[in-house]
Amino acid sequence: MTADQSRPDWIAVDWGTSHLRLWRMSAAGDILQRIDSDKGMGRLSQQEFEPVLLDLLAPDLGADRPLTVICCGMVGSRQGWAEARYRAVPCKPPGLAEATVPDADPRLRVFLLPGLSQASPADVMRGEETQIAGFLFSEPKFDGVLCLPGTHCKWVHISAGEVVSFRTFMTGEMFELLSTQSVLRHSVSSSGFDAEAFSEAVDRTLSHPQALAGDLFALRAETLLAGLGAEAARARLSGLLIGAELGGARPYWLGRDVVVLGESGVAAAYARALESQGAAPRTVDPETMTLGGLRAAYAQMETSAT
Amino acid sequence: MTADQSRPDWIAVDWGTSHLRLWRMSAAGDILQRIDSDKGMGRLSQQEFEPVLLDLLAPDLGADRPLTVICCGMVGSRQGWAEARYRAVPCKPPGLAEATVPDADPRLRVFLLPGLSQASPADVMRGEETQIAGFLFSEPKFDGVLCLPGTHCKWVHISAGEVVSFRTFMTGEMFELLSTQSVLRHSVSSSGFDAEAFSEAVDRTLSHPQALAGDLFALRAETLLAGLGAEAARARLSGLLIGAELGGARPYWLGRDVVVLGESGVAAAYARALESQGAAPRTVDPETMTLGGLRAAYAQMETSAT
Repeated sequence: MTADQSRPDWIAVDWGTSHLRLWRMSAAGDILQRIDSDKGMGRLSQQEFEPVLLDLLAPDLGADRPLTVICCGMVGSRQGWAEARYRAVPCKPPGLAEATVPDADPRLRVFLLPGLSQASPADVMRGEETQIAGFLFSEPKFDGVLCLPGTHCKWVHISAGEVVSFRTFMTGEMFELLSTQSVLRHSVSSSGFDAEAFSEAVDRTLSHPQALAGDLFALRAETLLAGLGAEAARARLSGLLIGAELGGARPYWLGRDVVVLGESGVAAAYARALESQGAAPRTVDPETMTLGGLRAAYAQMETSAT
Repeated sequence: MTADQSRPDWIAVDWGTSHLRLWRMSAAGDILQRIDSDKGMGRLSQQEFEPVLLDLLAPDLGADRPLTVICCGMVGSRQGWAEARYRAVPCKPPGLAEATVPDADPRLRVFLLPGLSQASPADVMRGEETQIAGFLFSEPKFDGVLCLPGTHCKWVHISAGEVVSFRTFMTGEMFELLSTQSVLRHSVSSSGFDAEAFSEAVDRTLSHPQALAGDLFALRAETLLAGLGAEAARARLSGLLIGAELGGARPYWLGRDVVVLGESGVAAAYARALESQGAAPRTVDPETMTLGGLRAAYAQMETSAT
């Protein structure tokens, strides 16, 4: 493969707070190369985004035409490269027409896709809207709910190609803080999974959400008094938090078609919890959906250019 | 006052994880001096407790008789000086007869008061049992509930001079982690209090505890979308967590005489939340109760010596 043959047609970027994932894409829509970098939004000042791109894309930059770069994620936040203002739901996932185009080197043509906002209950997302766009690109007739677990889990009601409403739960961040920073760090393993302990805990907080802060301390007490194992404690911590969330998100998932869009481990945990409540969730790969959403945005450019 | 006149009759110590508080006590039960130190249990190895005491008490040590030192708190944990094993409830708050006496310099006679444990739901306390002893020393006929807010808030059912049952909630630690380590740190002030925002939030999670993890993220979203103030956000965070706890602790406080035993700020918040639910809590000073419990233990020694 010569250098000319491998030159990308366009660049897809998922630029989050802690990481940057970049794909060099062919005109046919194939991935030529995937690049991971730790130069996330959180480590960069406003002036540093362009140099990062120029550095990563140096071999691809030519004088003949600017290289198209389509980005989603925190790069479009107020603390990012340039603000791509939230679009208010209900609406379709934002596309290229709604993107912000920051000032950049003439060899680049950069688009920052905006996130979504909701007035009441107040809520925001940035990055997930592109995964939703990717999912709707593959299943345009979907009518149901997407669950996007992660640091901040999103439940998203989709109908007629639009995001109708959504709700964010801080479950992932609470799990991380409690398991690594609180007194529970002495009780909870850093990996492993006990399916039975998880399911019991999900049932517990689904039916008694008000007991959460007490049930959490009981993990520590059972370690001291009854030799509770660290893997069981980890699974119970996860189950208690996810069970409480399922209680809060019940209006979203009850009686609806549910698709879980998340990394394999956490997606499996949410799917298991939902199944225990009689739901029958499917799971899809989040990276595939992110790339699908960026591809859908690129397709909009080709359409508008012809 | 000469050196001889100020020599203490005995020493009271509240030796916690992060701090040590020591009182030089006269034979008449008066405080000759209060000493604060940052040499908490968490910073000391097992061999370092005795040198800390010898250093703080150097002017008081004589060859004529050993100096009595009565300690409560984490100093008696497995990671402390010597383990003072938990006493199982229901029981009276443990006293000098249940204390562990570690090996020590012959000029010292040290007693470590034990904590309390409960088999189901699994729970433990260490330090609070001495505050309870102090409270019961002043109100021996009390029949009701003590609420001891702090990093880990304890609800304690007291009847006939015994601790009948108790339950610990991780509310204080969750507040600390969420307000300083999570995404909410960008939304929440480090001080200040908005009474109306607090009370609304207490009502919200008391009636909808399952919404907690979603209501938490809404604080961030309202900051971004609606300019929610940092003091209101702080009060709402506190109210959401305390409201959820009041829901879980309802079997403790509903229809019972409730006394809140905590530092002024957090005690006032719990009292306000309880009042909004129709309870009429009294508040008492925690340091007075700790010292009262240590005094009660010392009185047991005088009794047993006669």
